[in-house]
Amino acid sequence: MMSVKESYAGKINRKMNKKLHVIHVASGRMPADLVLKNAAYVNVFSNEICHADIAVAEGLIVGMGEYHGVEEVDVSGKIVLPGFIDAHIHLESSLVSPSEFAKAVLPHGTTTVITDPHEIANVMGTDGIEYMLQATEDLPVDVRFMLPSCVPATPLDESGANLDYRAIDSFYDHPRVQGLAEMMNFVGAVNADPQVVEKIVAAQAHHKKIDGHAPGLGGADLNAYIAAGVYSDHECSDIEDALAKLRRGQFIMIREGTAARNLEALIPLLCDKYVERCMFCTDDKHPNDLLEKGHIDYIVKKAISLGVEPITAIKAACHNAARYFLLNNRGAIAPGYLGDFVVIDNFENFHIEKVFKKGKLMYDGQLRDFPVPEVDPYLVKRAHNTFHVSLLTANDFADPRPRGVIGMVPGEIVTQDEGYANHIDVEKDILKIAVIERHKNTHHIGIGYIKGYGLQEGAVATSISHDSHNIIVVGANEEDMAAAVNRIVENKGGITVMRNGAVLGEVPLPIAGIMSDDSLVNVNHDLEEAKAKAYQLGVTPGVDPFMTLSFMALPVIPSLRITTRGVLDVNTQQYV
Amino acid sequence: MMSVKESYAGKINRKMNKKLHVIHVASGRMPADLVLKNAAYVNVFSNEICHADIAVAEGLIVGMGEYHGVEEVDVSGKIVLPGFIDAHIHLESSLVSPSEFAKAVLPHGTTTVITDPHEIANVMGTDGIEYMLQATEDLPVDVRFMLPSCVPATPLDESGANLDYRAIDSFYDHPRVQGLAEMMNFVGAVNADPQVVEKIVAAQAHHKKIDGHAPGLGGADLNAYIAAGVYSDHECSDIEDALAKLRRGQFIMIREGTAARNLEALIPLLCDKYVERCMFCTDDKHPNDLLEKGHIDYIVKKAISLGVEPITAIKAACHNAARYFLLNNRGAIAPGYLGDFVVIDNFENFHIEKVFKKGKLMYDGQLRDFPVPEVDPYLVKRAHNTFHVSLLTANDFADPRPRGVIGMVPGEIVTQDEGYANHIDVEKDILKIAVIERHKNTHHIGIGYIKGYGLQEGAVATSISHDSHNIIVVGANEEDMAAAVNRIVENKGGITVMRNGAVLGEVPLPIAGIMSDDSLVNVNHDLEEAKAKAYQLGVTPGVDPFMTLSFMALPVIPSLRITTRGVLDVNTQQYV
Repeated sequence: MMSVKESYAGKINRKMNKKLHVIHVASGRMPADLVLKNAAYVNVFSNEICHADIAVAEGLIVGMGEYHGVEEVDVSGKIVLPGFIDAHIHLESSLVSPSEFAKAVLPHGTTTVITDPHEIANVMGTDGIEYMLQATEDLPVDVRFMLPSCVPATPLDESGANLDYRAIDSFYDHPRVQGLAEMMNFVGAVNADPQVVEKIVAAQAHHKKIDGHAPGLGGADLNAYIAAGVYSDHECSDIEDALAKLRRGQFIMIREGTAARNLEALIPLLCDKYVERCMFCTDDKHPNDLLEKGHIDYIVKKAISLGVEPITAIKAACHNAARYFLLNNRGAIAPGYLGDFVVIDNFENFHIEKVFKKGKLMYDGQLRDFPVPEVDPYLVKRAHNTFHVSLLTANDFADPRPRGVIGMVPGEIVTQDEGYANHIDVEKDILKIAVIERHKNTHHIGIGYIKGYGLQEGAVATSISHDSHNIIVVGANEEDMAAAVNRIVENKGGITVMRNGAVLGEVPLPIAGIMSDDSLVNVNHDLEEAKAKAYQLGVTPGVDPFMTLSFMALPVIPSLRITTRGVLDVNTQQYV
Repeated sequence: MMSVKESYAGKINRKMNKKLHVIHVASGRMPADLVLKNAAYVNVFSNEICHADIAVAEGLIVGMGEYHGVEEVDVSGKIVLPGFIDAHIHLESSLVSPSEFAKAVLPHGTTTVITDPHEIANVMGTDGIEYMLQATEDLPVDVRFMLPSCVPATPLDESGANLDYRAIDSFYDHPRVQGLAEMMNFVGAVNADPQVVEKIVAAQAHHKKIDGHAPGLGGADLNAYIAAGVYSDHECSDIEDALAKLRRGQFIMIREGTAARNLEALIPLLCDKYVERCMFCTDDKHPNDLLEKGHIDYIVKKAISLGVEPITAIKAACHNAARYFLLNNRGAIAPGYLGDFVVIDNFENFHIEKVFKKGKLMYDGQLRDFPVPEVDPYLVKRAHNTFHVSLLTANDFADPRPRGVIGMVPGEIVTQDEGYANHIDVEKDILKIAVIERHKNTHHIGIGYIKGYGLQEGAVATSISHDSHNIIVVGANEEDMAAAVNRIVENKGGITVMRNGAVLGEVPLPIAGIMSDDSLVNVNHDLEEAKAKAYQLGVTPGVDPFMTLSFMALPVIPSLRITTRGVLDVNTQQYV
């Protein structure tokens, strides 16, 4: 049978029939699909707890009052909240596929996330964006997109793609794309770099949002950045920075994730005077952090424990992000809003008992099954075939010249300049570090030295290496370095701990070299085991063996970084 | 020369070049077009008065700090506010053209209005909407549109047009159309009338706003109305009604206009807890009210005098309406926002000294000239040719049958049933009233009687008659009734006071029979003079001779109304 394209009249009629049902239920002429009986719920409009039955039909809240339904759930004594929203996250940071991520955050009450597929786009370009759009279609966590603004992050990177405004333009028509993601190149914006500004202007031409990323920017430069069209910031780590941005009209995303934790510093924002302009985000959430602490619920709990009025914290956790992103059908419990609910015991314990998505019970101590979105086989194949690196040998890592020594700083991702070295010296903790270009088989291998990592033998390698996700490897000998890199290429990506040519621990990440096909629990298990092996090989306690490594190739953070072309002094922009 | 269509790349380049200029000025590399030096300004984000120079380029605010500009205006000691926004008005109610309206409200600090061209659409259908769009293009008051949802207002009306969802659909693509105007047919919405619901659904399909109009609606019916997709209400006249709607997620437009004045009753909304969901509107502003009291500035002043915190009142006067209507480039003083400013002396006097629109000084005690938009000659001709009525004689108003007597209630627009009459009896204040269908020359003339109007001799007629704008006439004799109606047709619309075949006073309203081509001052002068004449003819003091009359043909307000088919009992829906 030929498929018939729906006419405009047909579309309106279809939507109207749904709406007629909604109206009949709201007015009490038909039973609801679901009623939360005897609810105490947070009203984000009147800033109070209200008491009523909440009726749902067609996935939408239709009314509050006295209602009866096909399904009735008594929530006496509980508190019902709108589903939570993460205003800014890179889903890839969880190391699992979007559906596995959804499974992990649903029990924590998250029903919407706004993701920036920056990592996968640096590997696969627009195919990566499309992969993530397809892999998130109809998930019970609504995944919305901001289009990556900085691929590659810097021209010094050798990434898998180079996206100008025109490359991403057609994605603005996708119904789940909300705008342009964090404009990290704030220097470019402030200095009126045409390639930066045309990306912003194009997003505005599509009436979309533009997120910011400008830690500490102030004064006339901040004016210029905001006047360019950047509407939010999630990089504030002190209250003065946040207030300067808020006063100039930026929305503040209070970030509390795995790597960066700004909630405590920004607590003064969570009061009547400022909260309207504030929301929560995580930016990055790693597997064990997601499993052990939770997600947006963890931020709300922590805010309340720090003295924030619960309803104020709830608004930042749902309503304010919804309004910022113009997702006007969520973030509140009122007629016409999505039936996204979090049922908790009370604000003190904040124990999540039930989670509903569009009126469907998804979690009540046990997670409900949901179908995993099917992705176009072309994209699946493309995502699982992103390594283009010939087999390497120890010889590829031999290098008689002196090279810069990157000095790690415990607990930080900044580094310091530790001078020069021309060979590995395990006694003095001088290890070899290398980045192998892996997108185009250029055989570009940047070699340098690193101090502070602590490895006594073997090698550690990862294909998570910000932001271009080339392969980064640190070793006590060149043979294991080559073996570790070859193993990652064989696995189509991931993390490997290697000694004497034997794999001690590993996490395969075959989706674009940055995400697993496995479950979050399994990935976390493998990751923790590999981490233990790395520590056994001598990695300095306090240094995360993989995460810290993944930042060593990001040539925007001072002072020394390893790139595919050698060790770069970020301050002088010279290779050393 | 052939005109070349701008390419997408060309459009982005044009916008980028403007933006580059904005960034250069913001960062201090180029001088601003305008700087308000030493400003104290209301910051709607941090809810405080801030102090800085405000720099403007390309019509946009680019920064606050220390700036220099081609033009510098010292505003030391003054307070700078964002330009005001009227969230809901029928421009036609001013009786003048949109450019004359703009001249009247600019000195009062209004820089944006959202209009519902309901009146002209009832006369001219979509041609009326297009006329208003063209007549407001590039005015120094930005006029945004909500599309009329109820043309005709009821099926009992004989209006000039009948607009279903499809008739107005193409207007949603117009850049100044924000949505669907007040859904007055709340009964239809609550009862799931498909023609009402499809209008709402179509507006939603275009991602547009839908305004409400549902005085006193509550309970499950209110749930149904809101669940149908109605996002605001401007008909709240008491705080309980307003809070019920606010709690269910509607934005509340606090109305303070000529006919309806709800500010005092709704003052409790203007506090931290609720203000985010509230804004100001006027709905209708008649000439003398505009000239004597002002516009949104009058509401702000009154709110402050009633004890509202000034910054709270200012937010309701600009920022909150902007956010509701997704006009995200106005309603605040911050980088990227329009250079729409109101400069006042202080909050106590609230004397408006200067008004800027997009960085241009439009008023400083004297109004600056601006070009009047040119309207397509077809539409001009169409608007000035809306009367299709053959010449009438006294005989057309003769009627031996008994007809219902409409009893006017002083100070109200509701009426009461005063029984029957079959002839004029001036002694007993029984006058004849008639409505003459005037759009299609049907010669439908509904005849009845009215008590309480007080006319002793002559006749009063008007072509402003809600909502179909047929001609309504009241007379002490049939000859003057015919003469008055004929005079209005001759004038292509307006108001006439007639005695013994002579015009005593009149206001020609040749644009669709409801607006003048003349200035507001002249229209007001003619109107007040005609009013005086009507009172001289005996019209009861306390009854507005024309405005009260204009509601007598609106067959939705109890109890008796005159229609083109006779006297209708609104309660029983029977002609009497």
